[in-house]
Amino acid sequence: MDYVYGPGRNHLFVPGPVNIPDQVIRAMNRNNEDYRSPAIPALTKILLEDVKKIFKTTTGTPFLIPTTGTGAWESALTNTLSPGDRTISFMIGQFSLLWIDQQQRLGFNVDVVESEWGQGANLDILASKLAADTAHTIKAVCIVHNETATGVTNNLARVRKILDDYRHPALFLVDGVSSICALDFRMDEWGVDVALTGSQKALSLPTGMGIVCASPKALEASKTAKSYKVFFDWKDYLKFYQMGTYWPYTPSIQLLYGLRAALDLIFEEGLDNVIARHNRLATGTRLAVEAWGLKNCTQKEEWFSDTVTAVVVPPYIESSEIVRRAWKRYNLSLGLGLNKVAGKVFRIGHLGNLNELQLLGCLAGVEMVLKDVGYPIKLGSGVGAASAYFQNTTPLIASRI
Amino acid sequence: MDYVYGPGRNHLFVPGPVNIPDQVIRAMNRNNEDYRSPAIPALTKILLEDVKKIFKTTTGTPFLIPTTGTGAWESALTNTLSPGDRTISFMIGQFSLLWIDQQQRLGFNVDVVESEWGQGANLDILASKLAADTAHTIKAVCIVHNETATGVTNNLARVRKILDDYRHPALFLVDGVSSICALDFRMDEWGVDVALTGSQKALSLPTGMGIVCASPKALEASKTAKSYKVFFDWKDYLKFYQMGTYWPYTPSIQLLYGLRAALDLIFEEGLDNVIARHNRLATGTRLAVEAWGLKNCTQKEEWFSDTVTAVVVPPYIESSEIVRRAWKRYNLSLGLGLNKVAGKVFRIGHLGNLNELQLLGCLAGVEMVLKDVGYPIKLGSGVGAASAYFQNTTPLIASRI
Amino acid sequence: MDYVYGPGRNHLFVPGPVNIPDQVIRAMNRNNEDYRSPAIPALTKILLEDVKKIFKTTTGTPFLIPTTGTGAWESALTNTLSPGDRTISFMIGQFSLLWIDQQQRLGFNVDVVESEWGQGANLDILASKLAADTAHTIKAVCIVHNETATGVTNNLARVRKILDDYRHPALFLVDGVSSICALDFRMDEWGVDVALTGSQKALSLPTGMGIVCASPKALEASKTAKSYKVFFDWKDYLKFYQMGTYWPYTPSIQLLYGLRAALDLIFEEGLDNVIARHNRLATGTRLAVEAWGLKNCTQKEEWFSDTVTAVVVPPYIESSEIVRRAWKRYNLSLGLGLNKVAGKVFRIGHLGNLNELQLLGCLAGVEMVLKDVGYPIKLGSGVGAASAYFQNTTPLIASRI
Amino acid sequence: MDYVYGPGRNHLFVPGPVNIPDQVIRAMNRNNEDYRSPAIPALTKILLEDVKKIFKTTTGTPFLIPTTGTGAWESALTNTLSPGDRTISFMIGQFSLLWIDQQQRLGFNVDVVESEWGQGANLDILASKLAADTAHTIKAVCIVHNETATGVTNNLARVRKILDDYRHPALFLVDGVSSICALDFRMDEWGVDVALTGSQKALSLPTGMGIVCASPKALEASKTAKSYKVFFDWKDYLKFYQMGTYWPYTPSIQLLYGLRAALDLIFEEGLDNVIARHNRLATGTRLAVEAWGLKNCTQKEEWFSDTVTAVVVPPYIESSEIVRRAWKRYNLSLGLGLNKVAGKVFRIGHLGNLNELQLLGCLAGVEMVLKDVGYPIKLGSGVGAASAYFQNTTPLIASRI
Repeated sequence: MDYVYGPGRNHLFVPGPVNIPDQVIRAMNRNNEDYRSPAIPALTKILLEDVKKIFKTTTGTPFLIPTTGTGAWESALTNTLSPGDRTISFMIGQFSLLWIDQQQRLGFNVDVVESEWGQGANLDILASKLAADTAHTIKAVCIVHNETATGVTNNLARVRKILDDYRHPALFLVDGVSSICALDFRMDEWGVDVALTGSQKALSLPTGMGIVCASPKALEASKTAKSYKVFFDWKDYLKFYQMGTYWPYTPSIQLLYGLRAALDLIFEEGLDNVIARHNRLATGTRLAVEAWGLKNCTQKEEWFSDTVTAVVVPPYIESSEIVRRAWKRYNLSLGLGLNKVAGKVFRIGHLGNLNELQLLGCLAGVEMVLKDVGYPIKLGSGVGAASAYFQNTTPLIASRI
Repeated sequence: MDYVYGPGRNHLFVPGPVNIPDQVIRAMNRNNEDYRSPAIPALTKILLEDVKKIFKTTTGTPFLIPTTGTGAWESALTNTLSPGDRTISFMIGQFSLLWIDQQQRLGFNVDVVESEWGQGANLDILASKLAADTAHTIKAVCIVHNETATGVTNNLARVRKILDDYRHPALFLVDGVSSICALDFRMDEWGVDVALTGSQKALSLPTGMGIVCASPKALEASKTAKSYKVFFDWKDYLKFYQMGTYWPYTPSIQLLYGLRAALDLIFEEGLDNVIARHNRLATGTRLAVEAWGLKNCTQKEEWFSDTVTAVVVPPYIESSEIVRRAWKRYNLSLGLGLNKVAGKVFRIGHLGNLNELQLLGCLAGVEMVLKDVGYPIKLGSGVGAASAYFQNTTPLIASRI
Repeated sequence: MDYVYGPGRNHLFVPGPVNIPDQVIRAMNRNNEDYRSPAIPALTKILLEDVKKIFKTTTGTPFLIPTTGTGAWESALTNTLSPGDRTISFMIGQFSLLWIDQQQRLGFNVDVVESEWGQGANLDILASKLAADTAHTIKAVCIVHNETATGVTNNLARVRKILDDYRHPALFLVDGVSSICALDFRMDEWGVDVALTGSQKALSLPTGMGIVCASPKALEASKTAKSYKVFFDWKDYLKFYQMGTYWPYTPSIQLLYGLRAALDLIFEEGLDNVIARHNRLATGTRLAVEAWGLKNCTQKEEWFSDTVTAVVVPPYIESSEIVRRAWKRYNLSLGLGLNKVAGKVFRIGHLGNLNELQLLGCLAGVEMVLKDVGYPIKLGSGVGAASAYFQNTTPLIASRI
Repeated sequence: MDYVYGPGRNHLFVPGPVNIPDQVIRAMNRNNEDYRSPAIPALTKILLEDVKKIFKTTTGTPFLIPTTGTGAWESALTNTLSPGDRTISFMIGQFSLLWIDQQQRLGFNVDVVESEWGQGANLDILASKLAADTAHTIKAVCIVHNETATGVTNNLARVRKILDDYRHPALFLVDGVSSICALDFRMDEWGVDVALTGSQKALSLPTGMGIVCASPKALEASKTAKSYKVFFDWKDYLKFYQMGTYWPYTPSIQLLYGLRAALDLIFEEGLDNVIARHNRLATGTRLAVEAWGLKNCTQKEEWFSDTVTAVVVPPYIESSEIVRRAWKRYNLSLGLGLNKVAGKVFRIGHLGNLNELQLLGCLAGVEMVLKDVGYPIKLGSGVGAASAYFQNTTPLIASRI
């Protein structure tokens, strides 16, 4: 199994799955348990309360589904919509593309709003579509908060404003897979109806838990939504919530204890501090990219993502060669360019439980790989630029002052 | 998190999730990895080959889906059937009931064949229904190999024979959740079209991987099946299999390494030895129940399950009190009676990576609990009966001879 | 490494090293840390305070030495005595023999008081020797609290009384390796001058930490003791205690965190409850031995050990064959007979973090092995006898009531 | 326990204990086992064979002692020497000082050869002392291969040459604590009589195993050496080696399996590749120090250590402030200056299972800390210098080519 062994640690900078903190690995290092004993419901009850905090909601109802982000998407859609329902969805990169593909294959009538990859969702078109939809045929606005393929963060507050401006009753469904716990996200304030994330992203757990949170309005919609579903059906969860046993089918005991540990770390650091740290690490990364003379795939600063940076390489370089070489020579895992930007960008994931020195090690590795593939780089330039920013901004570790 | 701490180990004898061997816990004790690096596809390729062995198939195509048994059911149904399709399904206990419920909610036309709980599937009715169905309106025969609620194992070879006798083309879909890797199961020989299990059962892993295996005929059916699905869609898997990257979305790195370790243990012991061990432990359990003067919920020997024994308690005892007390006093986790047999039976799960002394400890605990709740039992009687059987039949541990 | 793999768990009933609770395994599942950072001294400070509680001392000074019980013995002796010093030591089994051997090889003048193996220390002879020693040539009385080879517990309160009766100033050195945290031990009340244990015994940790506790009188003696030592020298520890850095050389980070977890479990259960549990499990074991018609190696009830039971086998059986077979057939680890009782006894260790059902599984295994080797045993008889006792005496698990 | 929690990983660059590879942490994540079962002797036998390879000896006899480096020293001395014996020992830093202190306190007559801290052992004086010692009163030449306090590596081949030049029969005792498995070390070729290391150094294990290897000549000497010892006595080990049970007292089961995993990693990478990697990382570190305009505490290139670099800070900076700040702000653990160089140097440990990007992250951290404490540094300068070297020299990871 370790036939790919290399000395030292793997430097994991793909935008998911991300590094798991040792405290969480420890918490998950355990045997199975009877999930029908009093212990697991008691644990679940607290987890459901606490997980609402990462969505910044007090009115939402969370579901911890044994699935991935793709399943969480499906849960959000099939519980709130019926086949044939019209949705608006923004195609701005590979993951928004996949969600749109899912919406279409699940039988919804998707009104796709395209942008160039590297740009954010075109919210002006959203406004005009909503304005035109006086009959309220649009049942849901579906948007990826952070497009992981291009490193683009959409402005959710503005989406809400537009919905409000037109007093449009459409549901507001948000893919927060690569944003929640890392970017500023405010479910209640922004009137998000379903928000979702996956355990292997900013929560820094293994893959396997799709976390979906539904507003009262979404729950209401779920009562009449006609999409076929059983595994993803919220009704089954709600029935077991009421019974106090919480689980319609077997959860992963390990992920429950892992989630407990992950939330503990986030609350200890403070969610807003976690978000600030993501911004700090992302800013450092962007300064390094600039110092290298390379372009961010994200076209405008307003869309810059604090969880992933897609770096555009010069035309004479194949970006996948960078990723391959990083792994083969420096034990560094970077993200590939996907689909339209395949070969053109590589991605640095800087989300999850991570600190400055880890990122600087990664940036140093990227510099060497860039040189390896023939890019004329001054080694140390990007690290220096990021370091200068970090040296000015990194707070003392609160627990060690 | 350990507020339910008790001294010593928890004795886990629910019929799932089951005890995870230390070797598997160790293998899973790890950080995330990039699932797009060459390492994970290489690992996946071997796993897909090896996992076929536990189904006893060479022609099947396996899918390792990040889901539970419920999701695996849904994957089996939605990939092979279209809404409105007629299925035959046998209601013999809580899990067959839940699968039937799923079939109905997914829009299939389910022809339910009921038996009394404690009996096996009524295959005579199957025969007569197939005989009558000269128009081949029945698209699938769905059967739970081992009903976990009542400890009933159905005769799959006979189902195949009946299908053959009537040359009926219906798909043969099998829930092997509490059977595969523990009971004799022969996908190719029995012409099973879709078989499925969950990682937390006889494979002795954490929950989170639904393992589904499709025959060529099932794959063919999947090309035209019209049920909506994306997360569970085999097509996406097949596309990535072909590309050699294997994963349409993020798998659990930990479960992949865990599966590797779990299969290694099974192959080291020998799958047939594993199955023989399950029969030995089950026989011991049944001898104990007999010695206690209690009745097995399973009504005939031909249906006796080698993975779970449902024990009927006298009418003056509430079986859930046994489960509660076992946990509160002896750190012993037993299975509750479900639905129709709630309060009337408790269940001893004896599946997974388990040995004689673990089971005898459990039986000793059951004896004490039975006495606790007022059942006039001779302490040591069941343990003695099981021990006598084990002392005659347990082989030397192969690696230690 | 797992070439000795057998299905299911190993049943570990040697009198050390003993089963490690999962909580402790988890706590130790970690990387190294800088032991000179503020974190490790802070942890150590608390541990030194808390570890005193298991000795029931408020005036003692504990040392957590990276060594085994043998090293802890050496630390006790070389810090308090000078070569040529006269000690009284009791030869009652293999471990007292080894300690005497150590005393002799370290150059002390050992006055050996022998008993038949199976008997406790002859304290009448102690009394007469102390009475005769008006010149106070005896510098230390060295006694093994619990002789692990024969399952004999000595009466320490009586040793103190005798010392007091003769107002003898000899140091009172106690090997508590297989007693502390399991048997009633009262350092301050009994005026013990040095007490010691090893991490892999009742504390239920891995091997590697010798825990030595010195009374003020022992510390005073250490100032003038002339035995050569450096690694074991308390002075180095005391110097670093004063400096607040605590460690004269590198400790095992993992064992420190493990000790923290182990103490947490003991304090949660309550030390006196832990001791009561050891008595309960030992009583059950002795009742089983009686039911089997076998003899306890310990000759009188007053010496019965609550941590290990040495069982005498009939002359036509080689006890090592029992141990070998238990391991080869039932994955059960029992203790061999040592030295004078080799071949004649096997030993059941029932110390550490253990519960009734674990022990009953072990007893069921012993029964089958006894039958395997030709002893005419009624299977279930011992388990029944122990169960009857446990069913009357086992308390509800406090945290689960 | 995690009250000192900081986001992301701790960057551990003290010269011991060092980072434990995940594979080793996994291998150690286990319960205790009976060390008298056939499994542990079988494992030990292989380990003793394999551990000789890291000493590059075929004729040596290794001992795996449950102790630290300090205990390993004591084992080397007390088994080969008698009180009053004359040794030559070189005082060049804190650890050589401590070993000399130990030699004196154990009653040997130590002939101390001092050098300025930052210089290597004065071997000219050794030559003259040996030349003068025609009566062969010098029983042992004791030398620290790598002085961890100052980052000085002594030339052992030259020591052997001098001994040979004067045909001096003195034993050649080597502290290889921070060298073996990281620096070129050749026990047989260099005629070393006792070599020793600790598990927590280049072997990358937890603390707790002192590994001592004795030449035939050392074993011969041990037969007549009169120092008192029991715990450290090789005789007890040799007796159990002969019996095939290997252990005179309880070993750490976890460390044995950990050692197995650690050796597997070293052999997979290739011991000579491991040594080359240490040279590469050390060279990069030294280039960074140079780029920063700082001085290496090691005064000449011939003594440069490939496992630790002691960096001299300008007089207006307190080096302990660098260490404190690195830990408090960047989760970076550096080594303090010790004794004569306290406050004047800080140390970067670059030994064990480590790669380029980990080290570059550390160097980036050191740069920021240097700036924090007022040193006028160009951020990125050292990282750039080291990167330039690594980018030219780092091989592809063998298993990934």
